[in-house]
Amino acid sequence: MDNPVLVEVTRGGLVESRHRGSLAIVDANGKLVFGVGDVTQGVFPRSAIKALQALPLVESGAAEALDYDEAELALACASHNGEAVHANTARVMLMKAGLSEEALLCGPQWPRHMDDAADLILHEEGPCALHNNCSGKHAGFLGLARTLGLSTNNYIDYDHPVQQEIRAVLEGMTGQIIGHDVCGTDGCSIPTYALQLDKTALAFARFATGEGLEPVRAKAAETLYEACVNAPYMVAGKQRFCSDVMEAFEGRVFVKTGAEGVFCAALPELGYGIALKCDDGATRGAEVIMAGVINQLLETNKQEEKALEPYLHQRLLNRRDIHVGDVRPVSDFAALLRGS
Amino acid sequence: MDNPVLVEVTRGGLVESRHRGSLAIVDANGKLVFGVGDVTQGVFPRSAIKALQALPLVESGAAEALDYDEAELALACASHNGEAVHANTARVMLMKAGLSEEALLCGPQWPRHMDDAADLILHEEGPCALHNNCSGKHAGFLGLARTLGLSTNNYIDYDHPVQQEIRAVLEGMTGQIIGHDVCGTDGCSIPTYALQLDKTALAFARFATGEGLEPVRAKAAETLYEACVNAPYMVAGKQRFCSDVMEAFEGRVFVKTGAEGVFCAALPELGYGIALKCDDGATRGAEVIMAGVINQLLETNKQEEKALEPYLHQRLLNRRDIHVGDVRPVSDFAALLRGS
Repeated sequence: MDNPVLVEVTRGGLVESRHRGSLAIVDANGKLVFGVGDVTQGVFPRSAIKALQALPLVESGAAEALDYDEAELALACASHNGEAVHANTARVMLMKAGLSEEALLCGPQWPRHMDDAADLILHEEGPCALHNNCSGKHAGFLGLARTLGLSTNNYIDYDHPVQQEIRAVLEGMTGQIIGHDVCGTDGCSIPTYALQLDKTALAFARFATGEGLEPVRAKAAETLYEACVNAPYMVAGKQRFCSDVMEAFEGRVFVKTGAEGVFCAALPELGYGIALKCDDGATRGAEVIMAGVINQLLETNKQEEKALEPYLHQRLLNRRDIHVGDVRPVSDFAALLRGS
Repeated sequence: MDNPVLVEVTRGGLVESRHRGSLAIVDANGKLVFGVGDVTQGVFPRSAIKALQALPLVESGAAEALDYDEAELALACASHNGEAVHANTARVMLMKAGLSEEALLCGPQWPRHMDDAADLILHEEGPCALHNNCSGKHAGFLGLARTLGLSTNNYIDYDHPVQQEIRAVLEGMTGQIIGHDVCGTDGCSIPTYALQLDKTALAFARFATGEGLEPVRAKAAETLYEACVNAPYMVAGKQRFCSDVMEAFEGRVFVKTGAEGVFCAALPELGYGIALKCDDGATRGAEVIMAGVINQLLETNKQEEKALEPYLHQRLLNRRDIHVGDVRPVSDFAALLRGS
């Protein structure tokens, strides 16, 4: 449980705060290539595994039957900002399934950025479920349920066939048996399961490579990977790690953040999957760790470096935009990775 | 540096995230009554010491000369929500000194709660420096500068007499020599100094009791203490630990939060000062630790318990208000305190 300090927050040259974490980098054979801290602990992967949760939508043929395009598939894997483009795309996904936003059970959420929230306020609207960062995922669940002729009323329940199917896919991808004992409820009301960090990384190695997967699942993984790297803005939006990094890396990496300091990635050229957890749940900590890992593992060009840098060394600006400190990897970050 | 885990975040019965921290409870003689973790580490106290930073305003006679009432003095010690009442009170403080919001150098900040932000948006206003959570503190600095005939242009600079005076007061209260080497820049652009946690706690024991202070400073401390506990809404606002707890405890406790997981308190009836830091900078962690400490140290009545409980055991509700987990002290929290 004593995971090492991986990230420091500085102010005036001194360290003000510290983030500990654990990290698993695994190949498609399940070999732990690098591990830091407790890699077998159970971690709720939260939104970081939305791409895995979207596999049934594609495998089943539902996505094709509904004529979902890449932007819509990317939104099914997204934790988006609730910008107009995201809300509208979720609406279209529902329309294609003959449904409306009334069917969403994710709950309302204000857009992430104040300018988008202000747009709603000035139009005398509150946020609705379409603005919820998970609305694309839920639209995908509903599209799947509709296509398979299942009830669309209770698609978030543990025993609904949609959630059963997701559980089966997660078991297949991770090799971990998943039961009620590791089940919690996510922010958007669906079940979330505490998965071993190394097994989550394995799932993303398989997602990256297709190795060890049935052809239909390998094809679905490829389809979702391509959708996310080709439409990265749909996966998050402006000023966001996942969108900025996937945009710049032009297909070399898939990255996805989750609540409470989780981050997952797939690196096809190395055949690696990555899963990490910042102990305390801080997003800034998880971002710096993931940026540090990508920076260590991949040779980067200028465009990629430029996209990664603001997440690797996060400049803390105060209310007058004065640079007062940084969030950055610990000085022995590279050694921690190599020595593990 | 290996401070213990003091707070756990649960989901579905499992621990999802963990917060470590350190904690010093000190009496007015400087005796460490209870200590957890590294109590001599340097910690930027940030906004948690605004009441100490307001001492020169009162000691100098400026507050009296400007006819600041208790609400205004409380606002000088506040990290407020930027509600209309807070912004308006800051404006009045400036007017009493013959100044306007133009003089504030804290920078603009959106109100903390969306309903207050929406009020601004609907009036086609952006946030200004009056809405900055530190506007009362800055108004106090300006009032002091004005009363003493000092420049009001550069009152945030390290070498301005206002900041020099604050540094001298902090040295007197903590017994720590403060120099450039421990100086950072705060979110509101004033200098902030990394102080030993136990020495910060000592400062609040002195603030609580007046013991060991010159009469004029003891009187100023009492004046500010009374202002904050009599006008607690001004110290923070709706749905905030500091306001809710000070309101319910009716003068028994002074509490003040700071950025990056710092929290300070003064308990006159025990003669204790408290300073704590959540390692990772999380406010939720710091709140639970402070609530846990107050809960351990004081016999509480029903009104006090009711105010403390939502901060001691923070219920995590998801987007549909389903209870999905809790932020709470570790099970051996009391033992950690006793055993220290």
